[in-house]
Amino acid sequence: MKKTDFSTVLPKYKAVFFDAFGVLKNYNGMIKGIERTFDYLAENEMEFFVLTNDSSRSPELLAEKYRSAGIEAINTDHMISSGMLAREYFKHKLRDGKVVYLGTEKSAYYLEGTGLEGIPIGTFDSQNSEDIRALVLLDEEGFDWNKDLNKAINLLRRKNIPIIVANSDETYPVSKYEVNIAIGGIADMLETIVGKRVIRFGKPSSQMFIFAYEYMLKRVDVRKEEILMVGDTLYTDIMGGNKFGVDTALVLTGNTSPEQAKFLIKSTGIIPDYVCNSAVL
Amino acid sequence: MKKTDFSTVLPKYKAVFFDAFGVLKNYNGMIKGIERTFDYLAENEMEFFVLTNDSSRSPELLAEKYRSAGIEAINTDHMISSGMLAREYFKHKLRDGKVVYLGTEKSAYYLEGTGLEGIPIGTFDSQNSEDIRALVLLDEEGFDWNKDLNKAINLLRRKNIPIIVANSDETYPVSKYEVNIAIGGIADMLETIVGKRVIRFGKPSSQMFIFAYEYMLKRVDVRKEEILMVGDTLYTDIMGGNKFGVDTALVLTGNTSPEQAKFLIKSTGIIPDYVCNSAVL
Amino acid sequence: MKKTDFSTVLPKYKAVFFDAFGVLKNYNGMIKGIERTFDYLAENEMEFFVLTNDSSRSPELLAEKYRSAGIEAINTDHMISSGMLAREYFKHKLRDGKVVYLGTEKSAYYLEGTGLEGIPIGTFDSQNSEDIRALVLLDEEGFDWNKDLNKAINLLRRKNIPIIVANSDETYPVSKYEVNIAIGGIADMLETIVGKRVIRFGKPSSQMFIFAYEYMLKRVDVRKEEILMVGDTLYTDIMGGNKFGVDTALVLTGNTSPEQAKFLIKSTGIIPDYVCNSAVL
Amino acid sequence: MKKTDFSTVLPKYKAVFFDAFGVLKNYNGMIKGIERTFDYLAENEMEFFVLTNDSSRSPELLAEKYRSAGIEAINTDHMISSGMLAREYFKHKLRDGKVVYLGTEKSAYYLEGTGLEGIPIGTFDSQNSEDIRALVLLDEEGFDWNKDLNKAINLLRRKNIPIIVANSDETYPVSKYEVNIAIGGIADMLETIVGKRVIRFGKPSSQMFIFAYEYMLKRVDVRKEEILMVGDTLYTDIMGGNKFGVDTALVLTGNTSPEQAKFLIKSTGIIPDYVCNSAVL
Repeated sequence: MKKTDFSTVLPKYKAVFFDAFGVLKNYNGMIKGIERTFDYLAENEMEFFVLTNDSSRSPELLAEKYRSAGIEAINTDHMISSGMLAREYFKHKLRDGKVVYLGTEKSAYYLEGTGLEGIPIGTFDSQNSEDIRALVLLDEEGFDWNKDLNKAINLLRRKNIPIIVANSDETYPVSKYEVNIAIGGIADMLETIVGKRVIRFGKPSSQMFIFAYEYMLKRVDVRKEEILMVGDTLYTDIMGGNKFGVDTALVLTGNTSPEQAKFLIKSTGIIPDYVCNSAVL
Repeated sequence: MKKTDFSTVLPKYKAVFFDAFGVLKNYNGMIKGIERTFDYLAENEMEFFVLTNDSSRSPELLAEKYRSAGIEAINTDHMISSGMLAREYFKHKLRDGKVVYLGTEKSAYYLEGTGLEGIPIGTFDSQNSEDIRALVLLDEEGFDWNKDLNKAINLLRRKNIPIIVANSDETYPVSKYEVNIAIGGIADMLETIVGKRVIRFGKPSSQMFIFAYEYMLKRVDVRKEEILMVGDTLYTDIMGGNKFGVDTALVLTGNTSPEQAKFLIKSTGIIPDYVCNSAVL
Repeated sequence: MKKTDFSTVLPKYKAVFFDAFGVLKNYNGMIKGIERTFDYLAENEMEFFVLTNDSSRSPELLAEKYRSAGIEAINTDHMISSGMLAREYFKHKLRDGKVVYLGTEKSAYYLEGTGLEGIPIGTFDSQNSEDIRALVLLDEEGFDWNKDLNKAINLLRRKNIPIIVANSDETYPVSKYEVNIAIGGIADMLETIVGKRVIRFGKPSSQMFIFAYEYMLKRVDVRKEEILMVGDTLYTDIMGGNKFGVDTALVLTGNTSPEQAKFLIKSTGIIPDYVCNSAVL
Repeated sequence: MKKTDFSTVLPKYKAVFFDAFGVLKNYNGMIKGIERTFDYLAENEMEFFVLTNDSSRSPELLAEKYRSAGIEAINTDHMISSGMLAREYFKHKLRDGKVVYLGTEKSAYYLEGTGLEGIPIGTFDSQNSEDIRALVLLDEEGFDWNKDLNKAINLLRRKNIPIIVANSDETYPVSKYEVNIAIGGIADMLETIVGKRVIRFGKPSSQMFIFAYEYMLKRVDVRKEEILMVGDTLYTDIMGGNKFGVDTALVLTGNTSPEQAKFLIKSTGIIPDYVCNSAVL
């Protein structure tokens, strides 16, 4: 595994997809110096999107979080969240009726204006499941795991309805050494226990990359070969980018530590085009 | 799938292994008429054991639950719980030191007298993990899933210690149509998320059957061919019994409904020697 | 599960995606009467594509197979094969160099004109793996499984290269009761044994549906809500269509028998919008 | 990970279980100096067994292979092969009738004297499956993978019969850098494709350790705490030994290289009591 300086990689491309957490910021806030990368993009009129498996809040609030961490260049138009893909599904496929959701009120943003009425699992009356159309997993917060996961399991046993998870990540980092279980990890457990297929949105599914690419094409004419995906996680960012057909750069400021990178690339067979210390220029 | 009357099956054997829940009792209490089966066993001097994936309380308390449900013939000596196998592991393999456990105080019975000191996950101080020897999953009750499962995950990331689950069942029934997530289902989630192998005790592992068989041999000289395993679950009772080498009877008073039996036997390839409506004579 | 007549379903849509095998034809040739469906499509100026997980030959030859079975309406322009998506990957992502492939000469069509040089696994010299860029699984025929699968395993151990499978199906039917193992089933075995991630093309990945949708948009302006996916397999056709966001109809002329349909829909949680006896009008 | 000298480990125990391949010998023959270990065992009247996932030939022929490689101390009485456990199943559970097997004539040893008639898959007449009782996987050699694996799949679709694999290893080493797919790897593929549960014999199942322990007890009175399991593979030797309750030593002369050991122990959570360079004194 040869490491490459990000400053020799970036100029080869016309546009960039960034993963957010572990690339642009971490539990401490902004990755030091990352603003120079965005300055470079602006100076060179390069387009970019932030592709995040995060459905805990709206693109507006997501962008705000990045700006409040000090990355001024990111606005709502740059955010592609897995929740946005789930929202397309709600709107075009489910269309109307009631759904029960796991998550906070903020995460329920992705149900707004879709034609669906969202009922929080906590207030959902199990005796009244007749007209429930789907179970939607938006966020790991906002409900009581002991009580409400059992409620969810029994809803799924009583009614054969689709299970949608708007963020397929299993964990998210909360400090240098600690993580929390994310809604994607909870979805795995439900899937194992009820034996039904969960519909997952977010990286590594190519769908998220295609969605972003289509947005990109509205702004600038760019071929896949001219796009770089920058991420800190092999399974989501790099595998997804590779299958979609863009070049990929793994950075070592997040989930993949410098010590593990070589071994993980070899043992998983998920091979980035570049390995860089960080996305900082 | 031909169904056989249990009264024509039982007399062919010298000894019986019964699964408990779904065979002898259910959420309503004792299966109606099951006492006649135990009368028959007594009259014909047939030995039996109850093999249960339950580590929520001691064999004494487990037997008491069955007796209080009306099955007088079951006493502590008849109970083989998956917790007893975990206990062997604690005693002979871990031997001493501190372990963190998930479960109620009652389930902590299985740590008593093993040389291990059990610390409930709720009171465990994350900053003090230095001398923790193992993480032990005993029962799904007795802790806060939101808070303590994250604590468990981070303990496993910090310390490379064995993870033991004393009951591999994923769910348990709480009413005719409802189940709850059991500690085995939670173990699956932890295993997926941390990527480490869990050591599971209980059916379908042959270990449980061998353990019961050795107890049996102390009372009566019996060959495997003379033992019948009676259970309501294909994956645990029937597969385990088949691999161990005893004959197996699936009964339809629990997890496997009469409507599903034929299809499930065919699709899983787990084939009982007999299918009976119930274990009632 | 309520069955609906296909003649009441089809008129609701403006365009159709058909799975091929089990929907339009089977091992006996054309599904009797299916030509009337294509007559209807023509009369009503409805567009359609055939979405097939088949990379054993070019779209030209695939279309020819359908026409020679008697379905005159299908020409090369209607064929979307999983091989075509793999081909995009070869062209845009791998670009040049040598790859080793499993498959027949016909299947090697998907490497032509991509910039890649394909070496059949049979003639590949294991001592000369230095410049091999990828292992490509195109077809289950054309090589010696005993000898060449071991060769493939060892290539993957020696070189950390991407593994691409151009058809993710595990089996394909060869007669009313018989199937053969397909290249997707072989890919599963390699993935398990070497522990590396395979890049799979074809249904149920949304990528295939998006690819088809983009082709469709070049011919006719149609929203997702106006497209129907018709398939015989829950896991590929229906799950893929559902996630992509089109309506889905399961037909019972192929992989899913009328006896199994209800149970499978319930146990997998993959729920088609319609269940129809066949795609015949 | 602290490494310990095997000469300080061995004297702590009264008896030893050895894995064979990668511990006592490898593709080059006997591990240099291993005879001194057996001299030590003899001098100190320590008992030992060789526990091997190998069902390709009889214990006699297996012992012969070890002796012909120069390890004189091993005779038939020391061999516990996974095939011997499968044989118990054939004898006590299946008892009589016809079974179809995958493997060589030598591997069919495990069917001899069990009451079963073994039919090689190659000569099995698919039209005559009426009285077939089971499909038995003994060895990866002795049949045509292309032709006969499809035959096996279709037998399993036609008849709902148990599938038994007498060796659960996925690969076996054939040279310093090369492996071959073993019958356990083929079993995984069949299981995935037909969706039925395979009955697997061999490590890591505790059954194999219990079987060996019972043999051991016939010769010498020894507690589990006094037995050491020595193996080169975390998933089979070490996990199996740990769950059974004996101490475990990982040696680095086989499947686990010195470079990988630390990382693999950490990432799998399968923790040996000792890590030693080799089993040589």
